[in-house]
Amino acid sequence: MTVTRRISIMGSTGSIGTSALDVIAHANAGEAGTFQLVALVAGQDTEALAQQALTFRPDIAVVADPSRHDDLRARLEGSGIETASGQAAVLEAATRPCDRLLAAIVGSAGLASTLAAVRQGTVVAIANKESVVCGGKLILSEAEKSGARILPVDSEHSGIFQALGDGRSLEKLTITASGGPFRTASLDEMEHATPAQAAAHPNWDMGIKNSIDSATLMNKALEFIEAAILFDTAPDRIDVLVHPQSIVHGMAHFTDGSVIAQLGAPDMRTPIAYALGWPDRIETTVDRLDLAQLGRLDFTTVDEKRFPAIRLARQALALGPGGATVLNCANESAVSAFIAGHCGFLDISWVVEKVLSRFSLGNMAGLGCDTLEEIAYLDRFGRDMAAELLGQAHHRAGG
Amino acid sequence: MTVTRRISIMGSTGSIGTSALDVIAHANAGEAGTFQLVALVAGQDTEALAQQALTFRPDIAVVADPSRHDDLRARLEGSGIETASGQAAVLEAATRPCDRLLAAIVGSAGLASTLAAVRQGTVVAIANKESVVCGGKLILSEAEKSGARILPVDSEHSGIFQALGDGRSLEKLTITASGGPFRTASLDEMEHATPAQAAAHPNWDMGIKNSIDSATLMNKALEFIEAAILFDTAPDRIDVLVHPQSIVHGMAHFTDGSVIAQLGAPDMRTPIAYALGWPDRIETTVDRLDLAQLGRLDFTTVDEKRFPAIRLARQALALGPGGATVLNCANESAVSAFIAGHCGFLDISWVVEKVLSRFSLGNMAGLGCDTLEEIAYLDRFGRDMAAELLGQAHHRAGG
Repeated sequence: MTVTRRISIMGSTGSIGTSALDVIAHANAGEAGTFQLVALVAGQDTEALAQQALTFRPDIAVVADPSRHDDLRARLEGSGIETASGQAAVLEAATRPCDRLLAAIVGSAGLASTLAAVRQGTVVAIANKESVVCGGKLILSEAEKSGARILPVDSEHSGIFQALGDGRSLEKLTITASGGPFRTASLDEMEHATPAQAAAHPNWDMGIKNSIDSATLMNKALEFIEAAILFDTAPDRIDVLVHPQSIVHGMAHFTDGSVIAQLGAPDMRTPIAYALGWPDRIETTVDRLDLAQLGRLDFTTVDEKRFPAIRLARQALALGPGGATVLNCANESAVSAFIAGHCGFLDISWVVEKVLSRFSLGNMAGLGCDTLEEIAYLDRFGRDMAAELLGQAHHRAGG
Repeated sequence: MTVTRRISIMGSTGSIGTSALDVIAHANAGEAGTFQLVALVAGQDTEALAQQALTFRPDIAVVADPSRHDDLRARLEGSGIETASGQAAVLEAATRPCDRLLAAIVGSAGLASTLAAVRQGTVVAIANKESVVCGGKLILSEAEKSGARILPVDSEHSGIFQALGDGRSLEKLTITASGGPFRTASLDEMEHATPAQAAAHPNWDMGIKNSIDSATLMNKALEFIEAAILFDTAPDRIDVLVHPQSIVHGMAHFTDGSVIAQLGAPDMRTPIAYALGWPDRIETTVDRLDLAQLGRLDFTTVDEKRFPAIRLARQALALGPGGATVLNCANESAVSAFIAGHCGFLDISWVVEKVLSRFSLGNMAGLGCDTLEEIAYLDRFGRDMAAELLGQAHHRAGG
């Protein structure tokens, strides 16, 4: 890049945040001053945050948990780096002028700060798929008002974004799924799967919630919804392919029969670098793709009998923006219950399907997701329904 | 497309020309008047040319062979379509103002008309790889003077062109090779291969010369040289991968670890449509890609022991522009000899290697390809050397 770019990172000590700082360190080493940090924001881990702050010298370091502020302040004393804590400070940090904000706070906690940045007209690189799934309509309408631009960070969406060109003459999109640890498992094996078995992801290194979402393919269902929202594409023009090697991430199919695909090693530093550098590319140290060494790439359709998640995503989208919010929170509740041993693996999709069905029957599909309050209301509805159903599932499982 | 585009086709009755007219017919059916034909030029086949002219209504139809002019004139009498014949008429047709000229005359006969169009500043979609291999330096320097733009039509180069974006941050390019009919054959089987065995191409429908080039991988060697010239990329930054399904055509590898690939059914109508429509895409009836149905894509490196062609391409490029010209004409001579039964299959690469070696030893590498005369001189040198060596090969083969 030829210009210095000022960056804020929301969620700097998480997996995406640390990968982003790795990308930035390499870029700055190659071309001094490519990236300057404005704000680093973390949830609780003041040791890691202070270390990052001392290395990358942001204007401000913020810890969301107020009880950790004294520790952060002590660690950064004399550094000249401002410190703050609490939700108001997180939002203030998100609205500080910067050229690009990386929204990488995990779960629904990230939506408010993402929205605050979008309302400032900031270019937001969005790594939090739950924000898009639940608040996508709101984020995009605010972005349209402020002129903010939303850049995808999820590997599949970054792949599509790189493949899409100007988006004209598009026929359909494809996102790929590794198939997770149960790609070749029987329904019976899946019924008795333990959280440890479900969390063993073959290609990507991710947290336990994401790993279990990958085993149910609910991760892919959320990405399917995210793709429909971010690329404003009808669900019937989005395909999911099981591709166990996780090398092809996203594809754009055009009306001339041509398909443009983005490939790469399964390493989040590549899509992060693309979102931070766009429209430029930043050099990374990611392993280079060697197709001859890999030998082959496999592709199959999703077995909807064992993996109903993609079908559920289509159903959720058909129910309007609220459907996606309900799917997401019902899934979060069910995954927590599964990890705690309160339901079986197959109950996760069963609960999500039942909650969607009640949402539909309750004539709630007209509810929008136009404000944070509406989203919170739907989120509460979904979690309550899931809790009720999980009691039944627990009973079903003989727990 | 939103504007009418005027097109001339040099080589309209060949495989590329007829595919292009198929693309145009479909595009015009969808959006009346998208393409208007200026000139249709063919070698000898006046029956097909007249039929095309009556359907597509160009301003002029030209047959290169003067002895066929009377027949063409008779067939188009009363149609209002101008006719002409002979080499001067071919060049005049190539210089008629048009928005895009498709250069699809096979072999070295195409170079003069391509050059004439380029000198007019015309956007030229170039389907004749021999023109680029032998005259690429000349074509590009004339294009720079006139402001003409050169668009690739070969599927691999179209793939790279579609994948390349603005070309910044490029690390390397990959073109794929089906591997041809002898992909899994032993050296012994290849030594005794007949022209019929060599001409049986698994994926693409092409003429006998191209099919045999595909069996030796000399086709890929020419495309390798074409890629180096068209994309101004050093040979050590171009890879060739054997990919038997011919679905991935070209790839661009970037410094962030990302690889953009162009995929599609092996059907020339897609790259032709891209070159005719660029920067727009034109809808085609090409079979859509279904990766789940294909199941898998395989990739291996080229076995240089059985297929020395890519190594020879690198050697030829290292010898300067003349090396590529000599490689091309030595190969043409050797393929003709093989078809005629005057040498064995493996002798084709042997002859090319020997001719390149003599070119190098003869201190001729300083010779440029700056004029048609210099190219013709090198072409003659290569053919003479090849003829001499083919005598030895014939003797070796006991013929």
